[in-house]
Amino acid sequence: MSGEGDPLHRLANLLSRLPGIGEKSALRLALAVVRSEQGYAEALALALRDVQREMRLCDLCSDLASSPVCERCRDARRDRALICVVAQPQDRMAVERTGAYRGLYHVLHGVLDPLAGIGPHELKIEGLLRRLESTQDPKVTEVIIATSPNVEGDATALYLAKLISPLEVRVSRIASGIAVGGDLEYADLTTLNRALEDRRVL
Amino acid sequence: MSGEGDPLHRLANLLSRLPGIGEKSALRLALAVVRSEQGYAEALALALRDVQREMRLCDLCSDLASSPVCERCRDARRDRALICVVAQPQDRMAVERTGAYRGLYHVLHGVLDPLAGIGPHELKIEGLLRRLESTQDPKVTEVIIATSPNVEGDATALYLAKLISPLEVRVSRIASGIAVGGDLEYADLTTLNRALEDRRVL
Repeated sequence: MSGEGDPLHRLANLLSRLPGIGEKSALRLALAVVRSEQGYAEALALALRDVQREMRLCDLCSDLASSPVCERCRDARRDRALICVVAQPQDRMAVERTGAYRGLYHVLHGVLDPLAGIGPHELKIEGLLRRLESTQDPKVTEVIIATSPNVEGDATALYLAKLISPLEVRVSRIASGIAVGGDLEYADLTTLNRALEDRRVL
Repeated sequence: MSGEGDPLHRLANLLSRLPGIGEKSALRLALAVVRSEQGYAEALALALRDVQREMRLCDLCSDLASSPVCERCRDARRDRALICVVAQPQDRMAVERTGAYRGLYHVLHGVLDPLAGIGPHELKIEGLLRRLESTQDPKVTEVIIATSPNVEGDATALYLAKLISPLEVRVSRIASGIAVGGDLEYADLTTLNRALEDRRVL
């Protein structure tokens, strides 16, 4: 059909390349941009340029940062002996939102997933080992592996634990079990099993 | 939490203003942009500017157009005696994709929905009446109302039919019934009722 090469469809085409955005959603979003308030498209265009120009990976923890070293790695008030390993920047943000964790992070940018062709070399593991081997004071004493408790996340955790154990650094794994506020009756079998296995003495 | 004013979160904030994009999706999309191939963010930024700079409503049919009169209204091979009225530009595209319709269109940019504060004045109805009243040759002889067969779409169709009938223009409504390839057993009652009412003599 003619007319599908106009700016609207060019925009929709580009949007449909984003994850989770199908052709119809892309068109709906493009139409929303056309109808948006004055200045919105311009602001979005500017933000897109900024994000690709200014965002990079932190030299230490591989998290997204707008400077060579991210502000968490620069923060002197944090416990530098503690590293929480997460799969993605979103996961780092989720842990940070709890407000309970005051150590450093390391972002792997994925989990081991052989079927998807993601092996150890696709992940930011080397940088993590370098941090653990560093003789800089204070030395890292514990690594908390906070990948998701699913097949890939668990496999990644086991792999890292094996790599790290010779370095005399304690390796721990976040707990999994029934969600707080969750209902035992509706928990899936695997979760309930894990909750029983990982029971704590009160 | 500090650091949430960086380019990544600025972009996510803007994206979350789009319809159907929640906070988490917006962040996921912003991260996808950071990770996108070289040139993608730039192309998207450019497309955004173009779409708001170049797209406007056609002076005749109110459809989105990149010129004062859209290419369908300019197309001399189309049947100018026939106008298909649709609620949104997406609906026009859907009808056009059938390849079976060769008349003109009129886009209302909505349907009557009193609860949402959308009355006749919020829709592009005046322009439609102007086209029907025009003495230009050829005169419009039929208006096909192709709003969706739901409460608002049906109400809008009835309202338009009433407005148009004094103009000696035939007003028709797209058929509704069981979808082609659909299963009678799983059709909802209202649709099945409508399919029976609107039965055709073979």
